Amino acid sequence: MLDRLRELLGATQVLTGEAAAPYGYDWNGGGFAAPLAVVRPASTAEVSAVMKLASETGTPVIPLSGRTGLAGGGQGAGALVLSLERMNRIREIRVGARSAVVEAGVILSRLHEAAEAEGLIFPLSFGARGSAMIGGALATNAGGSNVLRYGNTRDLVLGIEAVLADGTIVDLMQDLHKNNSGYDLRHLLIGSEGTLAVITGAVLRLRPKPGAYATAMVAMEDLSPALALLNEIQQATGGAVEAFEYMPANFVEDYLALHPGARAPFESRPPVTILLEIGALAPRDCTPGLDGALPIVTYLEDLLGRFLEAGRISDAVIARSGSQRAEMWAMREAASEIAGTRDPRIILDIAVPVDRVVSFLERADAALVKADPGAGTSVVSHLGDGNVHYTVFPTRVDPVHKDHLVEAIEDVVAELGGAFSAEHGIGTHKLSTMARRKDPGALAAMRAIKAALDPQNIMNPGKLLPPA
Amino acid sequence: MLDRLRELLGATQVLTGEAAAPYGYDWNGGGFAAPLAVVRPASTAEVSAVMKLASETGTPVIPLSGRTGLAGGGQGAGALVLSLERMNRIREIRVGARSAVVEAGVILSRLHEAAEAEGLIFPLSFGARGSAMIGGALATNAGGSNVLRYGNTRDLVLGIEAVLADGTIVDLMQDLHKNNSGYDLRHLLIGSEGTLAVITGAVLRLRPKPGAYATAMVAMEDLSPALALLNEIQQATGGAVEAFEYMPANFVEDYLALHPGARAPFESRPPVTILLEIGALAPRDCTPGLDGALPIVTYLEDLLGRFLEAGRISDAVIARSGSQRAEMWAMREAASEIAGTRDPRIILDIAVPVDRVVSFLERADAALVKADPGAGTSVVSHLGDGNVHYTVFPTRVDPVHKDHLVEAIEDVVAELGGAFSAEHGIGTHKLSTMARRKDPGALAAMRAIKAALDPQNIMNPGKLLPPA
Repeated sequence: MLDRLRELLGATQVLTGEAAAPYGYDWNGGGFAAPLAVVRPASTAEVSAVMKLASETGTPVIPLSGRTGLAGGGQGAGALVLSLERMNRIREIRVGARSAVVEAGVILSRLHEAAEAEGLIFPLSFGARGSAMIGGALATNAGGSNVLRYGNTRDLVLGIEAVLADGTIVDLMQDLHKNNSGYDLRHLLIGSEGTLAVITGAVLRLRPKPGAYATAMVAMEDLSPALALLNEIQQATGGAVEAFEYMPANFVEDYLALHPGARAPFESRPPVTILLEIGALAPRDCTPGLDGALPIVTYLEDLLGRFLEAGRISDAVIARSGSQRAEMWAMREAASEIAGTRDPRIILDIAVPVDRVVSFLERADAALVKADPGAGTSVVSHLGDGNVHYTVFPTRVDPVHKDHLVEAIEDVVAELGGAFSAEHGIGTHKLSTMARRKDPGALAAMRAIKAALDPQNIMNPGKLLPPA
Repeated sequence: MLDRLRELLGATQVLTGEAAAPYGYDWNGGGFAAPLAVVRPASTAEVSAVMKLASETGTPVIPLSGRTGLAGGGQGAGALVLSLERMNRIREIRVGARSAVVEAGVILSRLHEAAEAEGLIFPLSFGARGSAMIGGALATNAGGSNVLRYGNTRDLVLGIEAVLADGTIVDLMQDLHKNNSGYDLRHLLIGSEGTLAVITGAVLRLRPKPGAYATAMVAMEDLSPALALLNEIQQATGGAVEAFEYMPANFVEDYLALHPGARAPFESRPPVTILLEIGALAPRDCTPGLDGALPIVTYLEDLLGRFLEAGRISDAVIARSGSQRAEMWAMREAASEIAGTRDPRIILDIAVPVDRVVSFLERADAALVKADPGAGTSVVSHLGDGNVHYTVFPTRVDPVHKDHLVEAIEDVVAELGGAFSAEHGIGTHKLSTMARRKDPGALAAMRAIKAALDPQNIMNPGKLLPPA
């Protein structure tokens, strides 16, 4: 089969042995899984030919793009790794239509640059943007901190092109806002983690670039009133909130311990610190006034001043410069670094309805005290979309104990109508959780769809769907 | 089987003969199709029991809610009509979370009222809102004139509950903004037109209610610069455009002919009239100033004044009162009435990329001149989302001629990367178009999914999927 692949793609695009080895490592530390080979097609037609061959021979295939997935979805010993890296063309930035037509191997940060050159943004961003590619972002329905304003990946995809297990090309690359012509296969494939098709292209939504940001750290004594505050700020600014991120006191302490040169946002060390950011589009909000101040910043000042007077917040500081804004974000974005300082650790990526975050934290903390009284936590939350990154530091390394803790937190999530995977997806890491917690009817439907589109189970086998 | 249904639901909820007859009529004039019977379950459990029975007996089922579909999807002689009308509870309006938990039989206008009572809106609206129900809106991914700002139905659905052909209940009623826990069955079912499942419930997004609207009619000499104008207005108002609707000169003429008491927006009768509406959320835009004027209206005045000075528009009139605003909308909403004045007529509901609407109109008109030189048209367009309602009045009643005209327009749509069904869906009306125009790979995937979830083809058979 390797010879046939070489015929199809050219020998230099079929890697084995040492050349293939880098593709056997997963970002999230799954160890090494030696691929059968790595192929790097240059076109959808080549991807289709590879899949036809894989189908004929029953060869498992792992579609791979930037290799920055966090759920162990990009590995598989003995599988054929199909890398999208050479399909890296931004075919078109359509300025009037505010859309971009791209191949799946386009690196996210490159798309950011191409959009910004036209005064637009592709508003999906996360830490790995310098390596992550569009195909993987779609396959995992990647999130990030701008979901509050702009939505997840799936809210930014108008069209898709993909190749099914048997090589069939599905071309739904329309740049349309309305299209009721059949089942929404686009959305079925987004978030399918490579188990249904190889995504080869997409038509993506672009947005206008905010002309100015107003960023603040806000101190509160209690988290409960925060959602009402967010809703009011949304209303006051016409929906301009870009981010609303919760950092508890110990998160700030942990950050300062790691970065002694950094300043605490508030001397008083409040229980609740919120990073709030507004993005202004209208020129009237972005054009400096006679005093040199940006209207959007002045407006936020007034708003926060009123909250302070009413006792609804205990303090606030607004960024007065780009570097001050960067300082504020640096603290928030240190979440992985902070979580990574302690072992053992259990990283949980959960979502609850936005009005149940407080309940989640109370109940999860209580459950943890019962299950492992000495355990620590690091918590940070995209409060505006109900996503909590809840990292547990158990007192001992013990798989049984770990499962016990995880199940205790899952119970809390289930009680509150939440999801056990907010952003990162299932991959291999959450297969047992899927088996335990996914609605059985939904799981049955998923299996039926998988069997229909990939009867031989060659598309990224062993991922997302737990063994029946 | 009818006896078993009576046992399950109670005899009064199983209608036959004359009592069932009203359910055999379709809104869009498909004539009468006598149902086998009509059942009216009161709960998801009852729906599940009915589907189990239908599965066992191989009985075709048509899920039905408000019976206002426009593509002939709600009829089928000899089928069991499963009406959702009794499942009409709004279970919860979650104000803090800005969501609503509803059963599929909730009438759209009732949900509007319930949301507005809390200062929120469910921003999906169309002519049939007094009869249409949530289940049907989801099954058809209903659109409307607010898609520009708020999206289609699918952009407003967070969670779904549905019953599959064999009675399996799929419970995905989460109220979450992030949830990457498997295939997006919610989106697969939305727009599936009753061919995959019976939708029984949904968790819907609510939005803040705009505090004020600024509405204007804008005159232009040419349509080509309109998109750039829209993009600038979006930027200037921070994305607050609620509607951007194009009415050509003859649309306005036709309206005035039907409503002699109405006033023309512009004496000059420009080639292009655009109905533009901004919705303001921020109190600073909605609170009357010292002069009594609303800031958002003053702002729009300034903006349009600048466009006029620059020669980018030829005239504009802003609504100064609620009734003047209503007058403006009455003209736009007379589209069906205008189209209905002439027979024969061919109603086409097409979408093209927003920057290709002008090309579509030029090419479609040219194609029509070639195919039927005497034919007339009535055109109106949701310009902001690329949706054109293109109604053709052919010179003769003749199915072959009609197909010829439809195919000529379809060719234009295909050339421009458009869709042959923007809002209304496929139903029975567009089966031949589906067969001709749908991407073959996508159609194959759709058939595989259909076969997997409904192996006996009892779910609304003969709809959406053309015969193989």
